[in-house]
Amino acid sequence: MCVCPVQTEEMAEQLEQKEQLGDEGKHVLKAPKGTRDYNPKQMAIREKVFNIIVSSFKRHGAETIDTPVFELKETLMGKYGEDSKLIYDLKDQGGELLSLRYDLTVPFARYLAMNKITNIKRYHIAKVYRRDNPAMTRGRYREFYQCDFDIAGQYDPMIPDAECLKIVHEILSALDLGDFRIKVNDRRILDGMFAVCGVPDDKFRTVCSSVDKMDKMLWEDVKNEIVKEKGLPEKVADQIGEYVRLQAGGMELAEKLLADPKLCKSEAACAGLTDIKLLFTYLQIFKVTDKVVFDLSLARGLDYYTGVIYEAVLTPLAGRGGTGGGEEPVGVGSVAGGGRYDGLVGMFDAKGRNVPCVGVSIGIERIFSIMEQKAEASAEKVRTTETQVLIASAQKNLLEERLRLATELWDAGIKAEVVYKRNPKLLSQLQHCEDTGVPLVAILGEQELRDGTVKLRNVASREEVDVSRADLVAEVKKRSS
Amino acid sequence: MCVCPVQTEEMAEQLEQKEQLGDEGKHVLKAPKGTRDYNPKQMAIREKVFNIIVSSFKRHGAETIDTPVFELKETLMGKYGEDSKLIYDLKDQGGELLSLRYDLTVPFARYLAMNKITNIKRYHIAKVYRRDNPAMTRGRYREFYQCDFDIAGQYDPMIPDAECLKIVHEILSALDLGDFRIKVNDRRILDGMFAVCGVPDDKFRTVCSSVDKMDKMLWEDVKNEIVKEKGLPEKVADQIGEYVRLQAGGMELAEKLLADPKLCKSEAACAGLTDIKLLFTYLQIFKVTDKVVFDLSLARGLDYYTGVIYEAVLTPLAGRGGTGGGEEPVGVGSVAGGGRYDGLVGMFDAKGRNVPCVGVSIGIERIFSIMEQKAEASAEKVRTTETQVLIASAQKNLLEERLRLATELWDAGIKAEVVYKRNPKLLSQLQHCEDTGVPLVAILGEQELRDGTVKLRNVASREEVDVSRADLVAEVKKRSS
Repeated sequence: MCVCPVQTEEMAEQLEQKEQLGDEGKHVLKAPKGTRDYNPKQMAIREKVFNIIVSSFKRHGAETIDTPVFELKETLMGKYGEDSKLIYDLKDQGGELLSLRYDLTVPFARYLAMNKITNIKRYHIAKVYRRDNPAMTRGRYREFYQCDFDIAGQYDPMIPDAECLKIVHEILSALDLGDFRIKVNDRRILDGMFAVCGVPDDKFRTVCSSVDKMDKMLWEDVKNEIVKEKGLPEKVADQIGEYVRLQAGGMELAEKLLADPKLCKSEAACAGLTDIKLLFTYLQIFKVTDKVVFDLSLARGLDYYTGVIYEAVLTPLAGRGGTGGGEEPVGVGSVAGGGRYDGLVGMFDAKGRNVPCVGVSIGIERIFSIMEQKAEASAEKVRTTETQVLIASAQKNLLEERLRLATELWDAGIKAEVVYKRNPKLLSQLQHCEDTGVPLVAILGEQELRDGTVKLRNVASREEVDVSRADLVAEVKKRSS
Repeated sequence: MCVCPVQTEEMAEQLEQKEQLGDEGKHVLKAPKGTRDYNPKQMAIREKVFNIIVSSFKRHGAETIDTPVFELKETLMGKYGEDSKLIYDLKDQGGELLSLRYDLTVPFARYLAMNKITNIKRYHIAKVYRRDNPAMTRGRYREFYQCDFDIAGQYDPMIPDAECLKIVHEILSALDLGDFRIKVNDRRILDGMFAVCGVPDDKFRTVCSSVDKMDKMLWEDVKNEIVKEKGLPEKVADQIGEYVRLQAGGMELAEKLLADPKLCKSEAACAGLTDIKLLFTYLQIFKVTDKVVFDLSLARGLDYYTGVIYEAVLTPLAGRGGTGGGEEPVGVGSVAGGGRYDGLVGMFDAKGRNVPCVGVSIGIERIFSIMEQKAEASAEKVRTTETQVLIASAQKNLLEERLRLATELWDAGIKAEVVYKRNPKLLSQLQHCEDTGVPLVAILGEQELRDGTVKLRNVASREEVDVSRADLVAEVKKRSS
């Protein structure tokens, strides 16, 4: 028997399994841990967000592809570093060993290699899966959407990279979530910096993931981790600290670092800094430098990045900045991230042929959470259907007439509904319109049937006019536009 | 050691696992068995199909929801009869036991019960998973889309049921796939028929799944299965045969059967036949009786149906009919199916409270296959991007000017592309337009920059006009509309 006060992970899992049985063997009614259903209101918001994102992707000439929700387990192996433990595996039921996709980037690289595609600009919007500790109130789920845009192909430096940042800028501006900042760095600069500070090659990645925490932790704590957990001398950590705590900047910071005698000993860092300068030239032309900062403390966790990396964060409070420094940790989540990964496709090619790639992933769940909160707070009601007109009657025994009129409207392309009752009350039919935001009611009665007319009622204003049946379609169209 | 000539399933699976390792340890580049990637062309077709389907769902006032790709294993258990063996389970990595969804109906019922929703009209388009034997050339996959429309709620009989059929009729007509037929039957009629023919209660379901094969097998073979495999007397099978081989019909067939002294002994059959008559009354009003037939041989496999059932099939060859009789098996796949399931939600409710439901599922994969074949055969090229204009140059060193113009266009909402090279050849830029169907090229040169103009070229006609830079956005919009 375990007597320690802290519940072990194993115990928690056993408890979870037990809970599934619930009381009296009746099973528990829930969606799996870390997942959620989308109700119609949430779907309406989701559709709106996707439309904004997709229209930006299309504005930049992207096509789209789709891949299966699971991949051969082997396809995912060795791509995610320490995060591999978060991959969902399928049960071995005979046949291939499968895992749920962890992101859309690795399936994209597999797709390119498999089809020998050497250049493409594509977007892909789909759900990915991570057995992480969910924090659903903050928009962190085990099943969540990614919206990826990637440019694959051998091109001149920094042009596609800059376009990805332009797209992030466009999308976050159009979504109107408040102020944001896009941090930029380069894996080569990080690696060069680690080298000149005395980090051994085989510790680059692990130090990198410590530095990656600077947006959530104070530098003192990050330093502690580097020294105590990662086992590097304090002197080395202090040297790293001098770089990663530099105030974030733009082109001028790149120039200053290019003149840094220590950093310039690293060829990788020099190449990275030169590219950052070029990147900012293009970003100026794209008019996005108001939001983009070069930040040496940005260090994304994934193994496959080889060049430019970036991450967008919302900065809701004025003056908070949220860039670099590490003096005041900013608790605001990342809403987009990406970078250049020139080696990933080659990992799938039998001859190791590479296809250079750069891309960005929009982290939609946090954006959904914010939009949902905004919708809740707003007085405006979110409509979940597009129905233009309800066909109603105040009198009995007119079901067939209502259905006949509905058929006329449907067949003319009008979005119309009928209440599924033989003899519904007029009040309950009007109530349905109030509840769901249907703007018009076409009311049929004996008199209207004799006259070949329909009473058309505006739900909001309660005005009613008689419309000849022949004109009804045109009248509904006119009022809906 | 196995010496039988037929490769066992186990051997096949072992072979499959081996294949994953491939030559020299380099892993095999493939999507999992039974799944496929969608390339940009296929995605363009998929988008078109979805638009047609969704616009029909919205025309009938539906909202949409989404649920996770996996459910608690228990949620799916006991819902699919013999097909349960086709469910994909996730590996037990601690925590809840999960399975991939097998359809969208059971998650829908779980959603209703969990949220205590008693009426809703919703659609749901998402992928479902079945460990079936794939036949991908015929559009049968292990991962495939379902497009479901369901009406939940306590309403007057047959009104929602008829609307589902109206929607199937609308969608299949709009997709323009050729002639089709929608077969209708009722579980209560089947059960009543089995009862009066002498099938014991506990064999209804298994005989039902034999009858379900009548669209693929000759009656003689179905009868054989009922007698030899299911163990029923030949006399019973012959009696069933007399009913299920009746020529399919409409209201008049329901009337004829209502007058059948034997069948009328079954209360269930009588109730079903009365409802079929009412259904056809509404279908006449909806103007869809040209395609709908009442067919006693239709028997869908799923356990949860309780009333009306239906299935739509394409009937590409004139005169083939494809309805009932069973004399000439028709090899045309089903493209939609559904029915009434009044007991499913109650299976999830602690107090067994039921929510009557009726719905339809459009089988999209087969429709995709047909549309893809049509697109292949057609001379018209499928565009995979929506780019309106490419910004090009014939001269060197104008990259930054091209990017500047692109920024102007993007910021004005124009879909524009730039080739990612410092100094691309004009010919290769024009070739990109030919390849991807971009209709316009905006050409910049030293002269144009001095004059504040752009040369606007129509790719198809090769005509070129000078447009003042200030007018370019309006001109591109005009030509794109």
